[in-house]
Amino acid sequence: VIHYSSPTSAGAECIDPNCTWVEQWVHRAGPREKIYFKPEEVKAAIVTCGGLCPGLNDVIRQIVITLEIYGVKNIVGIPFGYRGFSDKGLAEMPLSRKVVQNIHLSGGSLLGVSRGGPSVSDIVTSMEERGINMLFVLGGNGTHAGANAIHDECRKRKLKVAVVGVPKTIDNDILLMDKTFGFDTAVEEAQRAINSAYIEAHSAYHGIGVVKLMGRSSGFIAMQSSLASGQVDICLIPEVPFNLHGPHGVLRHLKYLIETKGSAVVCVAEGAGQNLVEKTNATDASGNIVLGDIGVRIQQETKKYFKEIGIPADVKYIDPTYMIRACRANASDGILCTVLGQNAVHGAFAGYSGVTVGICNTHYVYFPIPEVISHPREVDPNSRMWHRCLTSTGQPDFI
Amino acid sequence: VIHYSSPTSAGAECIDPNCTWVEQWVHRAGPREKIYFKPEEVKAAIVTCGGLCPGLNDVIRQIVITLEIYGVKNIVGIPFGYRGFSDKGLAEMPLSRKVVQNIHLSGGSLLGVSRGGPSVSDIVTSMEERGINMLFVLGGNGTHAGANAIHDECRKRKLKVAVVGVPKTIDNDILLMDKTFGFDTAVEEAQRAINSAYIEAHSAYHGIGVVKLMGRSSGFIAMQSSLASGQVDICLIPEVPFNLHGPHGVLRHLKYLIETKGSAVVCVAEGAGQNLVEKTNATDASGNIVLGDIGVRIQQETKKYFKEIGIPADVKYIDPTYMIRACRANASDGILCTVLGQNAVHGAFAGYSGVTVGICNTHYVYFPIPEVISHPREVDPNSRMWHRCLTSTGQPDFI
Amino acid sequence: VIHYSSPTSAGAECIDPNCTWVEQWVHRAGPREKIYFKPEEVKAAIVTCGGLCPGLNDVIRQIVITLEIYGVKNIVGIPFGYRGFSDKGLAEMPLSRKVVQNIHLSGGSLLGVSRGGPSVSDIVTSMEERGINMLFVLGGNGTHAGANAIHDECRKRKLKVAVVGVPKTIDNDILLMDKTFGFDTAVEEAQRAINSAYIEAHSAYHGIGVVKLMGRSSGFIAMQSSLASGQVDICLIPEVPFNLHGPHGVLRHLKYLIETKGSAVVCVAEGAGQNLVEKTNATDASGNIVLGDIGVRIQQETKKYFKEIGIPADVKYIDPTYMIRACRANASDGILCTVLGQNAVHGAFAGYSGVTVGICNTHYVYFPIPEVISHPREVDPNSRMWHRCLTSTGQPDFI
Amino acid sequence: VIHYSSPTSAGAECIDPNCTWVEQWVHRAGPREKIYFKPEEVKAAIVTCGGLCPGLNDVIRQIVITLEIYGVKNIVGIPFGYRGFSDKGLAEMPLSRKVVQNIHLSGGSLLGVSRGGPSVSDIVTSMEERGINMLFVLGGNGTHAGANAIHDECRKRKLKVAVVGVPKTIDNDILLMDKTFGFDTAVEEAQRAINSAYIEAHSAYHGIGVVKLMGRSSGFIAMQSSLASGQVDICLIPEVPFNLHGPHGVLRHLKYLIETKGSAVVCVAEGAGQNLVEKTNATDASGNIVLGDIGVRIQQETKKYFKEIGIPADVKYIDPTYMIRACRANASDGILCTVLGQNAVHGAFAGYSGVTVGICNTHYVYFPIPEVISHPREVDPNSRMWHRCLTSTGQPDFI
Repeated sequence: VIHYSSPTSAGAECIDPNCTWVEQWVHRAGPREKIYFKPEEVKAAIVTCGGLCPGLNDVIRQIVITLEIYGVKNIVGIPFGYRGFSDKGLAEMPLSRKVVQNIHLSGGSLLGVSRGGPSVSDIVTSMEERGINMLFVLGGNGTHAGANAIHDECRKRKLKVAVVGVPKTIDNDILLMDKTFGFDTAVEEAQRAINSAYIEAHSAYHGIGVVKLMGRSSGFIAMQSSLASGQVDICLIPEVPFNLHGPHGVLRHLKYLIETKGSAVVCVAEGAGQNLVEKTNATDASGNIVLGDIGVRIQQETKKYFKEIGIPADVKYIDPTYMIRACRANASDGILCTVLGQNAVHGAFAGYSGVTVGICNTHYVYFPIPEVISHPREVDPNSRMWHRCLTSTGQPDFI
Repeated sequence: VIHYSSPTSAGAECIDPNCTWVEQWVHRAGPREKIYFKPEEVKAAIVTCGGLCPGLNDVIRQIVITLEIYGVKNIVGIPFGYRGFSDKGLAEMPLSRKVVQNIHLSGGSLLGVSRGGPSVSDIVTSMEERGINMLFVLGGNGTHAGANAIHDECRKRKLKVAVVGVPKTIDNDILLMDKTFGFDTAVEEAQRAINSAYIEAHSAYHGIGVVKLMGRSSGFIAMQSSLASGQVDICLIPEVPFNLHGPHGVLRHLKYLIETKGSAVVCVAEGAGQNLVEKTNATDASGNIVLGDIGVRIQQETKKYFKEIGIPADVKYIDPTYMIRACRANASDGILCTVLGQNAVHGAFAGYSGVTVGICNTHYVYFPIPEVISHPREVDPNSRMWHRCLTSTGQPDFI
Repeated sequence: VIHYSSPTSAGAECIDPNCTWVEQWVHRAGPREKIYFKPEEVKAAIVTCGGLCPGLNDVIRQIVITLEIYGVKNIVGIPFGYRGFSDKGLAEMPLSRKVVQNIHLSGGSLLGVSRGGPSVSDIVTSMEERGINMLFVLGGNGTHAGANAIHDECRKRKLKVAVVGVPKTIDNDILLMDKTFGFDTAVEEAQRAINSAYIEAHSAYHGIGVVKLMGRSSGFIAMQSSLASGQVDICLIPEVPFNLHGPHGVLRHLKYLIETKGSAVVCVAEGAGQNLVEKTNATDASGNIVLGDIGVRIQQETKKYFKEIGIPADVKYIDPTYMIRACRANASDGILCTVLGQNAVHGAFAGYSGVTVGICNTHYVYFPIPEVISHPREVDPNSRMWHRCLTSTGQPDFI
Repeated sequence: VIHYSSPTSAGAECIDPNCTWVEQWVHRAGPREKIYFKPEEVKAAIVTCGGLCPGLNDVIRQIVITLEIYGVKNIVGIPFGYRGFSDKGLAEMPLSRKVVQNIHLSGGSLLGVSRGGPSVSDIVTSMEERGINMLFVLGGNGTHAGANAIHDECRKRKLKVAVVGVPKTIDNDILLMDKTFGFDTAVEEAQRAINSAYIEAHSAYHGIGVVKLMGRSSGFIAMQSSLASGQVDICLIPEVPFNLHGPHGVLRHLKYLIETKGSAVVCVAEGAGQNLVEKTNATDASGNIVLGDIGVRIQQETKKYFKEIGIPADVKYIDPTYMIRACRANASDGILCTVLGQNAVHGAFAGYSGVTVGICNTHYVYFPIPEVISHPREVDPNSRMWHRCLTSTGQPDFI
């Protein structure tokens, strides 16, 4: 076994107590010559947390298939996220190649998802009772924080348990990673909504189409979808502040577009312009702040503005979020999920714990969980990609 | 010329003053041996009114192509509905086979749509000025009432003008017609929304998916979409009253579904349960009453109800309306549009005016406009099709 | 029980020996007040024969769901067509709502299909051994002939067995029926192939795209697909003879199209122009004659012809057959399959045997099997629909 | 101007004769502070050569839009590849934002493609006559060789002409590039064919589905498509030799799969196993050798083999090539095309000539043409990706 962690390390480590390896920051993912677990002694569990994301079933499927190739026979799914560890009414779901063979052809999660759940201590106790010594956790930042805490608790209890994460964020906002699964599919499916908005706007007299896309802290989906479509006039993301009103505001530019082009399409990330909507202090079960609805806000302000300036405008608002989340993964995400799933199992078998798998500079690697979850990755407003997006939309600064 | 109208007829008639034909109620559509117009003297105009509907471009395209086959060279599109007759800034769009060749591959309307517009008298005066003697009107009930009034005004002014309608209602709610164009596509596209709701509901712990579909007065889209999907548990349409609360209410049944199946999918037509939402007295530019939002209402009441009874429930709401309306026509609607477009031209050339084209008992016919627009066609709650839908959903009465 | 058959009838009859009903030609389908079978005594079997057709899984699913609503608990699938009755290695597949819940989301047949199989006598003996008293047969003409023979054999052996067919022919070539399931989906999916051929032809210098579609004896798919696409210049079907060579031949018209339009698209039904291809005397396991490949023939002759006349031409050939057959049913076929499946069960429970279900003049009915399988339904070359197709393609007679 | 080339350089250079820059191997792509051309003096031409590839219209569109942003007004398309330079009957197509606005929504090439064409000398003479001083060439290796020769000839004639390529190869086989446009779309669309083959195979008794995909020298499409699908049992590519017959041959493994799984799916690249098919000495107009048809060969040999060993097998063969090539670009390729198109224009304006644009290690760069066309990029049989594919299919070595 080649991958131990110094005691001070916050991150990836080997669960073999004899291992003297000094942690390196990041390891190339893939199969290892020596494996730490005997396949016949493994009980592996998979859990999916948070909201839906295209590709969940692909990752589940590939973890199961790869575990079977290693010779593992005892594989279970924990239903409905961490909740499945505590809710007596929810039975483990036995998993095998036969069960998962075609699940990647549907969206959603075979295992079900949910937010929140029992305490880390209760989860680890439940794992002990069930005899689970490999845990694969598919989820976002909050879920990964939980996975890391489970990993720490297992060490504290001196359990030989490997906890491996697979980052699931449709927003593509995980630090250091080229992209996360589901993102490509989201950008693809968003085209349908943007094109609908374009057609509605273009076919109407002074039509304005507003599309709200996912992106709580990061505008990757909105940026890439706008670029791909070639049909967006204004792209608004959380990383770039903007005014609605005033001489440089979005509304003034919409007036210009209506007067010159006759129609306009706006693509806004859900987390954009949060200074412009009323604060809600509510949080969901994952602890995420419930955002004010910037899409509806823009729709309303646009209607009001054009009424005030006496120019007719026909504003249509589209929120395709759930129709995008529930899609099955496209081919590109299918491949990403396959490799991530394979590597998650390779990592667990090699004894990695407290790590998560990802793709970084086109290479598949294991990251220590804390390194990637400290904060969300964001669009750099000075990046070439954002500038390409601005070139494509032709929009000015809105400040 | 074979198709005259008695003076007392409210409906279809021949515009040839020498014609003595006594009107029959409905005529088989298709080419006629004798034609009333000389192709080289025809200036044909097409106008599309109201909201978007899949197939508009197919009908426009086929009217243009068929007019060219008759030898007509002077064909124009009136931009943005009846408004295009009065708005000086909006120029006629010259149309030819070359222009329309591939427009059916996109959704929307090449000509643009809008609601409202100038008075009938102004429209006819504009037509006189432009020299238009064939007018093809694509629109719903209100638009057809306008078309009939234009036809009447033309007779009053003794103009030799043929006014022919093509019923455009995605709701499929035109009297006497088997189906209207766009409906099939709407049902097809609605599957995507329903399946997303199913996946969101099924993947969530106690998930409930609510999908609102089109259908102001008629539940055909909701009924057929529910039947086609096989994934809907509760289908609510305007023709069948229901309670949300109470022992037989929708919410009680949702509780039952969550307890027995763990998830549920609701499909509701926009015009359903209008007694349960606050009345708005607003009307849109077409004169349609702005409906209260029954989808949002059900979402809110469901959340509230489950909170009150202390059972967790995860409610997701999907409104795919604009994404459905903006679709291109599917193959089945493509054929329907092709035949309707061909027949609209055949009818105009044969001298029919004040008629609209449709399919009735699998035959294509001309209807006098007044016969089909007196009120919307509705789902018969005693029909076999509604009972098949109930069998499929397994829902009880909600009264 | 209300539906008996006179002994001389070739067709539908009641299996109750006391029944004195004189057969009517065709019965309205649907639930009956009196049912012949006690649900708890029923063992129902479903078998799918022949080639794939979109909607097979929808029909299987609906038969199972409707049987469960009647209270039947013993439902099985016979694997791989009639072969499943004799092949010892093939076990019956137990069916329930849980098993079939989402099978309509995939193409193919859950049960598997095959051609051929054991003798009628062996099938009925196998049914006796298994205790099957309701048999649902999904298949084409040959399969229905088999189903009728099974029905006859059951009567001879005085078995109380209901044999009910559901016509499965993607070609839409069953007598008396408005349409058969899978046809609409086939026309829809064929658009993809035709559009590809159009784009290949249009983007190439003197491009010619040839698409071969299904249709052994009947050109419905080719005709409707051509009409729907608006992109086909030449549509060739089995019912309308044509020459390739000579002054009125297809090739001369292709030359004309290349010279005037620069490109052309040909859509040919597989059974068209069989006089122009070499006879094969081979038959497949269903007894169908293996057709010569008219698509390849047209491709080759076209290349040869343009080489001979010294005009460059770029011919691309597309055969999308298997990609169309393997599709899942679209929404319209989904509804058709649902109603057919429900009615098949209603019919069997009411004691009908030797019947098949269908839609006729927009009404769902039971037909005596012999009435609908005497020969394939064909496109009438004098029909309005074929003339609409000719108007759309603009093609001349090729004789 | 910052980028000159030493006279000995085979590759990228600056067309400014005063420039003394020593060529570096590869340059970061993007806008430059100083531009070499005055926009009002530019006549830019775009030409698309070879076969179709998803994304051609996206690149054309973006080149036109970016040229307009630079202020260029004189933009033309050369119809049907290099042929358009010599064929008097083919007129230049004026291009503008209005013309190209929505062309990316359709597959194919707005300009038309073809293989072959006039001599380099004639092309350059034609360019001189037309006053073209910026030429954008979209094509494969042969086309790029042509573009480089045009660049050389322009230097010889001392013309201030920038010749910039955009590599168009659906096979993704260009040296040094992460991926080429159209590849992602091809892998996506190939899923449809593979899934059809899977469903046909799975629904048949002893079903075997064979899918032939693009890939003359390189198996990237076959490999990635197999990986993405999770439904392929045998993947065959040009880079990895295999036997059909013999104890380790493909056929023996198919027998094993039929006996154990009951069905099998084979995915073969068109250039695989060329030692197993009859050599054709024919070449197409691009000079490519016409390959023997390995797909048909495998189909025939498989049928023969199973007949010989007395096991029934139902072999279905699918060739989706033209249906894949004619697709519009997916979102991921849409972004790639957008950036490539922008960079092609940035490069030309900065004075680069004899270069081609690409993405390399996630960075967009300019390559000297000769560096990337010496031979096709191939799948490394020792790469992780090929091993992931083998893990996914579970196939052994076939030697």
